[in-house]
Amino acid sequence: MEMSSKLLENAVAEISQLPGIGKRTALRLVLHLLRQPEIQTQLLSDALLKMRNDIQYCKSCHNISDTEICTICANPMRDTSLICVVEDIRDVMAIENTGLFKGIYHVLGGKISPIDGVGPSQLNIGSLVEKVKAGGVKELIFALSSTMEGDTTNFYIYRQVKDSGVATSAIARGIAVGDELEFADEVTLGRSIIHRVPFENAIKNM
Amino acid sequence: MEMSSKLLENAVAEISQLPGIGKRTALRLVLHLLRQPEIQTQLLSDALLKMRNDIQYCKSCHNISDTEICTICANPMRDTSLICVVEDIRDVMAIENTGLFKGIYHVLGGKISPIDGVGPSQLNIGSLVEKVKAGGVKELIFALSSTMEGDTTNFYIYRQVKDSGVATSAIARGIAVGDELEFADEVTLGRSIIHRVPFENAIKNM
Repeated sequence: MEMSSKLLENAVAEISQLPGIGKRTALRLVLHLLRQPEIQTQLLSDALLKMRNDIQYCKSCHNISDTEICTICANPMRDTSLICVVEDIRDVMAIENTGLFKGIYHVLGGKISPIDGVGPSQLNIGSLVEKVKAGGVKELIFALSSTMEGDTTNFYIYRQVKDSGVATSAIARGIAVGDELEFADEVTLGRSIIHRVPFENAIKNM
Repeated sequence: MEMSSKLLENAVAEISQLPGIGKRTALRLVLHLLRQPEIQTQLLSDALLKMRNDIQYCKSCHNISDTEICTICANPMRDTSLICVVEDIRDVMAIENTGLFKGIYHVLGGKISPIDGVGPSQLNIGSLVEKVKAGGVKELIFALSSTMEGDTTNFYIYRQVKDSGVATSAIARGIAVGDELEFADEVTLGRSIIHRVPFENAIKNM
């Protein structure tokens, strides 16, 4: 795509480096910005720069935060003996949205994935193991995605903490609430039968 | 979606103002930027600002340009007596990519659309009519989209220039090259039969 302006070409090239955004979409976005008042581009540009330069990660759980310790870790109402281990901050948001978890989180920042060159040292695993070994943690809940990488990461952490007497659990896998059994995949349906729960427990949060 | 950081929330809010980008996609883009070196955000931010503030529109054809007169209008090899009338600069790029048009363009900046509050005065129609009336233009090719707004705009311009003796034409509508007849819509197929071309002409650019 040849463009009549280097400035335009440059802006399109930068935007199309973002994941899932091709040259055509980038051009559409740039032309949209050109039709809007200059202030919108100014605000967008400022927000991105400020976010990238000033954002912090919670020293305790590695969640994204504007302060040294994030609002979840700093909340005295949260149970710090219960730690939910997640991949990234989107998982924190998703679980927070349920309003059902009262413990704290630990954000790993990814999964162990030799293919992508991600080893344990690139993830926030060391600080989690230290936290467990320092005592005060009763249970770790693994909430990583159920892929080979997720399972590997769970198992890697499990091996490091199992001698410290902390309880470990994994979130329940099963048929989503409202889903039809006939459309569920066999693996999930099989697990949901093996890991069935007493009916009195099942109706607790209905 | 509640977020643990106002900076993050702000960046997501700004990005999701772009057309076709929702909160979830915006969050994914922002988290991607956080994983990349700071320089990428810096470059993106600079490219957008510089583009928005410094870009110019060609004084003659209203195409986006880095100079007062765009490279197409300034090219002595182009036939300035043949003007292709288009909606926006994406159409210029599309036609330029064919390599088959040797005239110049006139970018209207949209179509007449009373529903969206776009009247003739908001478009670059006046300067086109002036150009035609000043003489030296032999033919106007209308290449607007074939919607009611496009047709209205074509007709509006046609009425203003028809007495000045300029020839007017519209790009050919028909079955796309390589398409199967059975899947074509009736309107297009009907037009392609009515506006059939002599076979010797049809094979010229094959």
